[in-house]
Amino acid sequence: MTSDAQPTLPFETRLSVVLSLLQAQMGAKVSTNASVCEAHSHGEAYQIAHMPAAVVFAQSTADVAAVLKVCHANHVPVVAFGAGTSVEGHVTPLEGGISLDLSRMTDVLAVNAADLDCRVQAGITRQSLNALLRDTGLFFPVDPGGEATIGGMCATRASGTAAVHYGTMKENVLGLTAVMANGEVIQTGGRVRKSSTGYDLTSLLVGSEGTLGIITEVQLRLHGLPEQISAAVCQFETLDDAVNTAVEIIQMGIPITRVELLDAVQMQACIAFSNLTEFKPLTTLFFEFSGAPEAVREQISLTQSLATENNGLAFAWAETADERNRLWKARHNAFWAIKAQNPGKQLVSTDCIVPISQLTELINGVRQDIAASGLYASILGHVGDGNFHTIIATEDTPEGYQQALALDRKIVARALSLHGSCSGEHGVGVGKLEFLETEHGPEALSVMRALKATLDPRNILNPGKLLPSGPIYHG
Amino acid sequence: MTSDAQPTLPFETRLSVVLSLLQAQMGAKVSTNASVCEAHSHGEAYQIAHMPAAVVFAQSTADVAAVLKVCHANHVPVVAFGAGTSVEGHVTPLEGGISLDLSRMTDVLAVNAADLDCRVQAGITRQSLNALLRDTGLFFPVDPGGEATIGGMCATRASGTAAVHYGTMKENVLGLTAVMANGEVIQTGGRVRKSSTGYDLTSLLVGSEGTLGIITEVQLRLHGLPEQISAAVCQFETLDDAVNTAVEIIQMGIPITRVELLDAVQMQACIAFSNLTEFKPLTTLFFEFSGAPEAVREQISLTQSLATENNGLAFAWAETADERNRLWKARHNAFWAIKAQNPGKQLVSTDCIVPISQLTELINGVRQDIAASGLYASILGHVGDGNFHTIIATEDTPEGYQQALALDRKIVARALSLHGSCSGEHGVGVGKLEFLETEHGPEALSVMRALKATLDPRNILNPGKLLPSGPIYHG
Repeated sequence: MTSDAQPTLPFETRLSVVLSLLQAQMGAKVSTNASVCEAHSHGEAYQIAHMPAAVVFAQSTADVAAVLKVCHANHVPVVAFGAGTSVEGHVTPLEGGISLDLSRMTDVLAVNAADLDCRVQAGITRQSLNALLRDTGLFFPVDPGGEATIGGMCATRASGTAAVHYGTMKENVLGLTAVMANGEVIQTGGRVRKSSTGYDLTSLLVGSEGTLGIITEVQLRLHGLPEQISAAVCQFETLDDAVNTAVEIIQMGIPITRVELLDAVQMQACIAFSNLTEFKPLTTLFFEFSGAPEAVREQISLTQSLATENNGLAFAWAETADERNRLWKARHNAFWAIKAQNPGKQLVSTDCIVPISQLTELINGVRQDIAASGLYASILGHVGDGNFHTIIATEDTPEGYQQALALDRKIVARALSLHGSCSGEHGVGVGKLEFLETEHGPEALSVMRALKATLDPRNILNPGKLLPSGPIYHG
Repeated sequence: MTSDAQPTLPFETRLSVVLSLLQAQMGAKVSTNASVCEAHSHGEAYQIAHMPAAVVFAQSTADVAAVLKVCHANHVPVVAFGAGTSVEGHVTPLEGGISLDLSRMTDVLAVNAADLDCRVQAGITRQSLNALLRDTGLFFPVDPGGEATIGGMCATRASGTAAVHYGTMKENVLGLTAVMANGEVIQTGGRVRKSSTGYDLTSLLVGSEGTLGIITEVQLRLHGLPEQISAAVCQFETLDDAVNTAVEIIQMGIPITRVELLDAVQMQACIAFSNLTEFKPLTTLFFEFSGAPEAVREQISLTQSLATENNGLAFAWAETADERNRLWKARHNAFWAIKAQNPGKQLVSTDCIVPISQLTELINGVRQDIAASGLYASILGHVGDGNFHTIIATEDTPEGYQQALALDRKIVARALSLHGSCSGEHGVGVGKLEFLETEHGPEALSVMRALKATLDPRNILNPGKLLPSGPIYHG
């Protein structure tokens, strides 16, 4: 293993070799500008920050491979950067080195309308992709809310509001191009809907947070735009009634497209921020139904019955596409609505998930935790998957941040005790490292570490993320 | 790496150590009976056969771990065995050693009806599981036709007739218990619908064919029994019309439950074998629609329109559950129908898949290949996924087998040239090894080999399967 032995030259020397080589090879694609580096020193979790030595703006898989070859030879870390929307510190170059920005890699390489698939460069955002697809009658449904890149969504195994119907990135990525630690390029998966040939490298890379390879191209499943989309809102006097309605929708197998919960705190903020004056500050479910007209009518009828049995108030319908967009925009602006209610405060978003039968118990427990903390916090989320977020507002100080993390720890502990996961969709990054061993057990983590050590023995790919240190499986 | 160095004692000596230790530890669970060993020397592809030294009938994860610990210490191969329904040689102990039979591990460990999931031991068959689930209103939908075990279905990433609607094992396995090469037990995944925490070890093990670990327990997604199920058959004068109908159903996004094609050769055999005297020996589509009544009605209406536009004859409806079961039993007995038409011959089933837009071209090419071969062969399959099989009948001699393989090679070459895969659902085993490099490229294979070398450095887990030998990625 001599090639993986610790390098003999000091880090700063190796780094300056890397910078010289990259500047010679890539010219203006390399920036050491302080404000560019600062913009790449963190994602939306700005509390987790560290400056890169330089930012390289890649425009092709070959660029990414070139950067990795140089960094690999010199044992210098590389952290991929897309839209910077991570909330768990994924894009922060904890050990310095190179921030590899893929946001200029926005080409749609192929659209196969007849096969409902497409191939894109990793830096395109889902909004840009869907805008370009509009004339095809197809769309890419995974919708985490923010303006994320497809590559970043792959790396964190993202999901969002429509996952209850269309699945997450795990179910919607057919194949990848990825650059491995040493600069080699691999193709995984392909264009077929299913295959039984070989280890599922696509699924291994999806969710690997840039620690096993850097994703440069993605083959995506597309879906036909539904013939009809209907959206409605139903308010409830109690949180239990709203959660139970969502739970029963899933248990009955109603193929609903979205079912989102906003608690009274969140709804009050949204009413103010998005001018939803027709609603009350009560726990609210946002629904979307889609498909062929008769099927949609049937879904709606079944859902209304369940809501009524759970004491739901009358359904408010979004009759037009504009009305629908206004409602869903209000939902997606939930974070900013909380921000507006808490000027000058910092916000921390939690993310946990449990089997749906445990959701009522968990949310009730979280409300107790919030009350005990004395903090302002809302609850909202993708309750059809058993997944929700708490948005916690605290003073914008290190102490305030620690207060928010303390509340998050209580929430995660409750979720894990109810057979849950510490992240439904945000990923591990730095923020969730401490929970991984409890969630997966030491044996599975030791296997994960063996995979990391094999594919990136020099530990140059996003070091310090996803895996807490510990024993490594040896077969 | 001293522990992985080649062992110094000869294989026969190490094997007798293993047998002594296992007999001492496990008593009557160990069999060296010749007929028991013979029954574990091959799966349904009896042409690929090799005797194990002994068969161990495991009854628990602890039993599996005990076997692996002993075999690991002595560098003796272990091949997992379930129902023996593999058609690609997966269960054949190519290098001898232990056949580890899991078919006594049939417990259902938990059914969580409210969460639509269950946990089972790996040796239960899907039929037994569904029989036990009957009173819950839930079922496990992945249906490869044969009486396969859930563990074997995981190991080969199986799918079958209902995958077009419910997905394959990849989409329906939430988590696993697996025993690694050295006997350590890991838990992967969990009970939640989605998670963004850590490498997806579940997906890595699903489809790994017993080469990375032995799956002993499986957490499965369940689905509600549909309120209504309707089945119908439509016959076509030409193969093109039938294939185009299936392709358009998928392209229109009709959420059909099953859509199976049987060509005229296959239909003729099924009519004779299953007494389907109401049908003609024409290319035929078998449909199943399910869901809420209005949604089913709408699916049927749309499908009938497409079939009519493609010159389909009148739909024949299976009005009762008995009628439906008769039709689908005839479909699932397709192999035996071909066998009955070809007494004394050997049958070889191929398995390829392409993007659905390429399906008509591929099937037409395969018909030419069949005609040129002069062999009797039918075409049938899961055309909604772009996946189909050719059942080839040849003389039951080594030469006949080679004739069938020669035709299969032509079919696979066509599929790969149309962006396809050499196996939609049967897996690689031994039979598809030669195609892996063309399909995945040398770079991805070198990464797969690195994973294998890391997790099973002594190469005791199902050696000789899934991965052709070649260079190993080194990061």
